Amino acid sequence: MKVGLGDNKKDMRAVWFASGEVKMIDQRRLPMDITIVGFKDHKDVAAAIRNMTIRGAPSIGAAAAYGMCLAALNGKDLAGAAELIKAARPTANDLFYAVDHMLAELKRKVPPVEAADGYAQMMVDKCSSIGEHGAALINDGDVIMTHCNAGALATVDVGTALAPIRKAHAEGKGKKIFVFVSETRPRLQGMQLTAWELLQEGIPHSIMTDGASGHFMRMGVNMVIVGADRIAANGDFANKIGTYDKAVLAKELNIPFYVAAPVSTFDFGTESGDRIVIEERPEEEITMVGSMRIAPVGSHAVNPSFDVTPARYVTGFITEKGILRPEDIHRMR
Amino acid sequence: MKVGLGDNKKDMRAVWFASGEVKMIDQRRLPMDITIVGFKDHKDVAAAIRNMTIRGAPSIGAAAAYGMCLAALNGKDLAGAAELIKAARPTANDLFYAVDHMLAELKRKVPPVEAADGYAQMMVDKCSSIGEHGAALINDGDVIMTHCNAGALATVDVGTALAPIRKAHAEGKGKKIFVFVSETRPRLQGMQLTAWELLQEGIPHSIMTDGASGHFMRMGVNMVIVGADRIAANGDFANKIGTYDKAVLAKELNIPFYVAAPVSTFDFGTESGDRIVIEERPEEEITMVGSMRIAPVGSHAVNPSFDVTPARYVTGFITEKGILRPEDIHRMR
Repeated sequence: MKVGLGDNKKDMRAVWFASGEVKMIDQRRLPMDITIVGFKDHKDVAAAIRNMTIRGAPSIGAAAAYGMCLAALNGKDLAGAAELIKAARPTANDLFYAVDHMLAELKRKVPPVEAADGYAQMMVDKCSSIGEHGAALINDGDVIMTHCNAGALATVDVGTALAPIRKAHAEGKGKKIFVFVSETRPRLQGMQLTAWELLQEGIPHSIMTDGASGHFMRMGVNMVIVGADRIAANGDFANKIGTYDKAVLAKELNIPFYVAAPVSTFDFGTESGDRIVIEERPEEEITMVGSMRIAPVGSHAVNPSFDVTPARYVTGFITEKGILRPEDIHRMR
Repeated sequence: MKVGLGDNKKDMRAVWFASGEVKMIDQRRLPMDITIVGFKDHKDVAAAIRNMTIRGAPSIGAAAAYGMCLAALNGKDLAGAAELIKAARPTANDLFYAVDHMLAELKRKVPPVEAADGYAQMMVDKCSSIGEHGAALINDGDVIMTHCNAGALATVDVGTALAPIRKAHAEGKGKKIFVFVSETRPRLQGMQLTAWELLQEGIPHSIMTDGASGHFMRMGVNMVIVGADRIAANGDFANKIGTYDKAVLAKELNIPFYVAAPVSTFDFGTESGDRIVIEERPEEEITMVGSMRIAPVGSHAVNPSFDVTPARYVTGFITEKGILRPEDIHRMR
């Protein structure tokens, strides 16, 4: 992804390995500061996943792979490291997938850095393919709505939901697009990360509140594209809270609703959305801004991090293998 | 409404006249501070409406009435004062209604304070009737979702959307209810005003983000009640941005969706929702928190204050005259 540093634009990933350290952009400090942090211990990588220094299912997967790489380089107990890293976030399937992938690679003696770099590159290649398949759905002049951040920051590079948008914009040739980004309370990943990425790429966009989704869809949105944290075997999927609302609104207004995600996001062990465990995060993410309380003292908030959208609302899943309709998922299995 | 001041609960209105001044609770400082402000000039009342010291269509109406009262007491040009006050906010029908009502009252020589107090009391009486009619719809154990603040702060006292909730709770006799309050970005009137009112009354509630509406509706909400800023002749209505999303979600999930508003909110001069002018507020309400910018420098936000919900999503309008179905509105006309 492009990252503006002073007068220069640098090409950068969300997470990488350099000089014996796992490096990542601290996403909690964006868009105010571009801060690169480095970790030498897999426990610190697990903590960075937990405290959302890095977030987004595929980036979490890559960070987990690099965490396992550190554990291997440092001669640590791999089973223990795997358990610790898997426990860092409960919803992202990629986390489990990446750790198991690394355990298999390390078992067959692939050098740790090579294995983790390979995992990250695989993710970037998948995102590029998602971009190719998805860009074909985008027409000149389209207005696209997205939610949260399913961009390069969330996927090592390129993005899932943002991949078709990046690709369509890069094609140039008059494919002019406009993106509505919902701010994504409580953590504002839409406003602070997606808008930031679009700005770096020069893609025209507006930020809106989450509650304005229906209003702007009615005024004319051609397509909604979101990411997914976990897709059940029947096509129900978990994504950032607020996704389900957009899916229902899109259906009501006959707007195509796409979910962009690599095939690794499909969890065939989970039959349907009812079985997906929804992470509950601290209420302070809603009731506080920094150290300032904004809610009445005595009131409480509930803060589910994800919601589940039933498969029947999905027009198609944009994967690296092409566009799948919900009814096609079983074939992939 | 109950207002906790230190160890005492005091009964207070959102706006009133005392000692030659129009007094109001500064709603921008809630829930952190309970600050009473006073104005001696109608221009300052117009400014207080504009800068949202007082908000909510019926409270705006009462403030406008008291503003006209000040203009009359101070011997000012009433036509000029009426024009100034009407221009303070573009969407609230009550504002126009109240100013015209005061012009008529003053013309037939009703003393200014008596006329404005009468207007405010009329509003409170209407809200009490809305509470009676609406409470009959609420069952023991109901979970109710509301949006923004259509409470006592918004309506001089009692509330519109909160009136049935207050009344059902006050009935006691085992009518236990639970309220989900959506925080209502960007200005957080749900979190900061509605939750605060519910807390004062001891009504169990949780704050949630606006994007969590569908998630919690799916988990079990029995009824959605919102207010309205303007209702067109065909039943389409304007209310705080985010209302339309909830209406669509409620329809999809077969949850009754009620709009609580006095009859004065109906604007028979506006044929349908398409004709309602939507106020656009400054983007900084979204991109800034106080003096701190939270959006990327270079990104912009769009900030419509209201959205329009078509009449077909409304189960019923809870008015002081009883419950009206959208198809009954023409009879009232």
